[in-house]
Amino acid sequence: ICRRSRKSPYPMISVAEATNAVISAAWQCSTKRIKMDSALGYVLAEDIQAADPLPPFPASIKDGYAVVANDGAGLRKVSGSSTAGCKPELYSVVSGECTRINTGAPVPPGADAVVQVEDTNLLVEDDDGRVELEIEILKAPFVGQDIRPTGCDIAAGQTILTTGTLLGASEIGLLATVGVTEVLVVSKPTVAILSTGNELQDPNEPLRVGYIRDSNKTTLIALLKQHDFPVIDAGIAKDDPTSLLKSLKSALAQADVLVTTGGVSMGDRDLLRPVLVSDFQAEIHFAQVFMKPGKPTTFATCIYSGQKKLILGLPGNPVSAVVTSNLYLLPLCRKMSGRANYMYTCIRAKLSAPVRLDPRPEYHRATLCWKEGEDLPVVYSTGNQLSSRLLSMASAQVLLRLPPRTEDQESLPENTIVEALLLQF
Amino acid sequence: ICRRSRKSPYPMISVAEATNAVISAAWQCSTKRIKMDSALGYVLAEDIQAADPLPPFPASIKDGYAVVANDGAGLRKVSGSSTAGCKPELYSVVSGECTRINTGAPVPPGADAVVQVEDTNLLVEDDDGRVELEIEILKAPFVGQDIRPTGCDIAAGQTILTTGTLLGASEIGLLATVGVTEVLVVSKPTVAILSTGNELQDPNEPLRVGYIRDSNKTTLIALLKQHDFPVIDAGIAKDDPTSLLKSLKSALAQADVLVTTGGVSMGDRDLLRPVLVSDFQAEIHFAQVFMKPGKPTTFATCIYSGQKKLILGLPGNPVSAVVTSNLYLLPLCRKMSGRANYMYTCIRAKLSAPVRLDPRPEYHRATLCWKEGEDLPVVYSTGNQLSSRLLSMASAQVLLRLPPRTEDQESLPENTIVEALLLQF
Ligand SMILES: [Mg+2]
Ligand SMILES: [Mg+2]
Repeated sequence: ICRRSRKSPYPMISVAEATNAVISAAWQCSTKRIKMDSALGYVLAEDIQAADPLPPFPASIKDGYAVVANDGAGLRKVSGSSTAGCKPELYSVVSGECTRINTGAPVPPGADAVVQVEDTNLLVEDDDGRVELEIEILKAPFVGQDIRPTGCDIAAGQTILTTGTLLGASEIGLLATVGVTEVLVVSKPTVAILSTGNELQDPNEPLRVGYIRDSNKTTLIALLKQHDFPVIDAGIAKDDPTSLLKSLKSALAQADVLVTTGGVSMGDRDLLRPVLVSDFQAEIHFAQVFMKPGKPTTFATCIYSGQKKLILGLPGNPVSAVVTSNLYLLPLCRKMSGRANYMYTCIRAKLSAPVRLDPRPEYHRATLCWKEGEDLPVVYSTGNQLSSRLLSMASAQVLLRLPPRTEDQESLPENTIVEALLLQF
Repeated sequence: ICRRSRKSPYPMISVAEATNAVISAAWQCSTKRIKMDSALGYVLAEDIQAADPLPPFPASIKDGYAVVANDGAGLRKVSGSSTAGCKPELYSVVSGECTRINTGAPVPPGADAVVQVEDTNLLVEDDDGRVELEIEILKAPFVGQDIRPTGCDIAAGQTILTTGTLLGASEIGLLATVGVTEVLVVSKPTVAILSTGNELQDPNEPLRVGYIRDSNKTTLIALLKQHDFPVIDAGIAKDDPTSLLKSLKSALAQADVLVTTGGVSMGDRDLLRPVLVSDFQAEIHFAQVFMKPGKPTTFATCIYSGQKKLILGLPGNPVSAVVTSNLYLLPLCRKMSGRANYMYTCIRAKLSAPVRLDPRPEYHRATLCWKEGEDLPVVYSTGNQLSSRLLSMASAQVLLRLPPRTEDQESLPENTIVEALLLQF
């Protein structure tokens, strides 16, 4: 205890260097074949081809009449009807005649144009007014008018989705369109969340003297659920090597990525790094980042039971934990899930009020507001930015990336254009 | 059939009017009490107060020594240690002495400042080097230095979340922080999705002649899952009144909101509106919207089994269905779920290429790209915008809102600043 070092033995690195270290250590998870219905949010691990063309037949774009274009405007005998779902070869159209046709229905053989009902008049109907016998085409049609040719949307054999595509709702719909109901996707990493600290207690139990309720585990589990990553509750470890060792072993046995909160400061009870190094032969990639909040953020890798494991040791205070999860954990999980765009989208926004800069680059929680007639959104701080105040994180839409204070620039004036990382919409 | 009207009997309204009609008909769902762990994505229906202060005791912000500030810099006898989780009254500090203290640990009675370990030197340790006996404080501390007073984050009785708050990860964490593990939230609407069309078949079966695979139901179910709304697969109805009636009854019995695709054009097999009016005494609020795609979008309300139901009749073509779902269905579901911000966020972006305008206001699928040094993102069209091509919807991030063509303005040049509705990030 006495001879503990009074300065961190680890060099302070930049957020960019830290991000790079985390992302470089990430591997892509193995692939698995799953049902189309459960593939939402996964990344494709194969190209998808269409077996047949779409539409599979020439299809009408309008409700109206299938005609021979060359007949021009004028009278037509109505010889039948083609409705959606009927066989294309059921009717054929000859010169001087036409067939009623619905949107999406097959254009019968012989016809080469569709005239929408709005561009026609009814001339003769049968005695009981149930069948159209003769109509007038008001405007001469052109060949191909209002017809989607076979394969015009998707050609037979066409690749419609490629390896690496993130499967959103429309992509899942495309799979249905081409009848591919099982797909090979990249698995997602399993993340275990472990809180550490003698002062922590389960939020479900009455508050004991000297304790605080653990909120980090609840927050981070919710964050991972929100982003659709499988997550395991690895409990709360005490600040002693035996408890920590036991919890770490159990968590690493179940997860690809282990996230701990607490235990990474310079206190004599901050045991994460020593236990990782001595008991898991972990390599500590970094343990100090030039940022606020989140300075003691630690990243380590080890081999456990023959498997590579990634360990993010996040600070214990709630805002630091959630800011660093947004910056490091989510991009890491997205990368492992095969996502090409695994980093945050960064937009530009105008400060609504002056901001005093911190000696460290600061990630400042804020909300956005788009004003009528203004091109850029305006950012509003979500209040007190002291790193323990989770209140300031609530409903933040962005993390403002503020530059560190310099002698020349101690604060940013109102209307300064700053960078904002989009957290959610 | 013959005497069918050749023009829609319904007036054409604007997207703003249509949106207003849908949103005005929406009610807020009833409330329910659920566990904190399942509350992610719900809207709070009660204010949440903190029963006790946070921190519940004066807590150290640093690893270091709890001291009497008035003693100034210089020598201190080390009289014990306060670690996280120990009882605050365990040690007390008197003038000339200090106590080792960890981040988050209670500051012992008598101490009124914390000096971080970096600002100290070890002077004397015991014989076997295990206990610190005397240290030197390098810099005179001030009263309150590196101490979070009791309740500085959250005061006892403070309202930490208010009715109407959307519960994201940080909000769920706040609930844990104050030990509120069950909350009253607004329920979400149940949505049933019904496809209609004789030409449609299940995507799981081999393609039959004259048929196409139904993709709309798969897409819309995925879209609602993506946005965390409960959704029911109501099957595929044929284009005949009996089949449609049966499917509509079954769907309305299970859902608050019914979404149909197809059956809303002017064809004689487009039966949705007639069946809704004659068999359900539904009120048709609109059936034509001045937009592309999505012109025949229909909105109706009815009372079924004593309950009000909302019915969105979307066009059958896949892109129209997904664009109109984004514009009308998702805001409706968000409104019913109690969300204050139920509409889309609309940002501004620059066209990457000239765009030819349509006579109708067009919702054009596009992706965004933020370029180094540019304030506004650039938008790229996702290709062919023919409304049947779902390929153009895949991976779209925004819907560009393009103005209708006028005589003076037939197209928009490159770099024009346009409005873009954010679909996803
Ligand atoms: Mg701790
Ligand atoms: Mg139809």
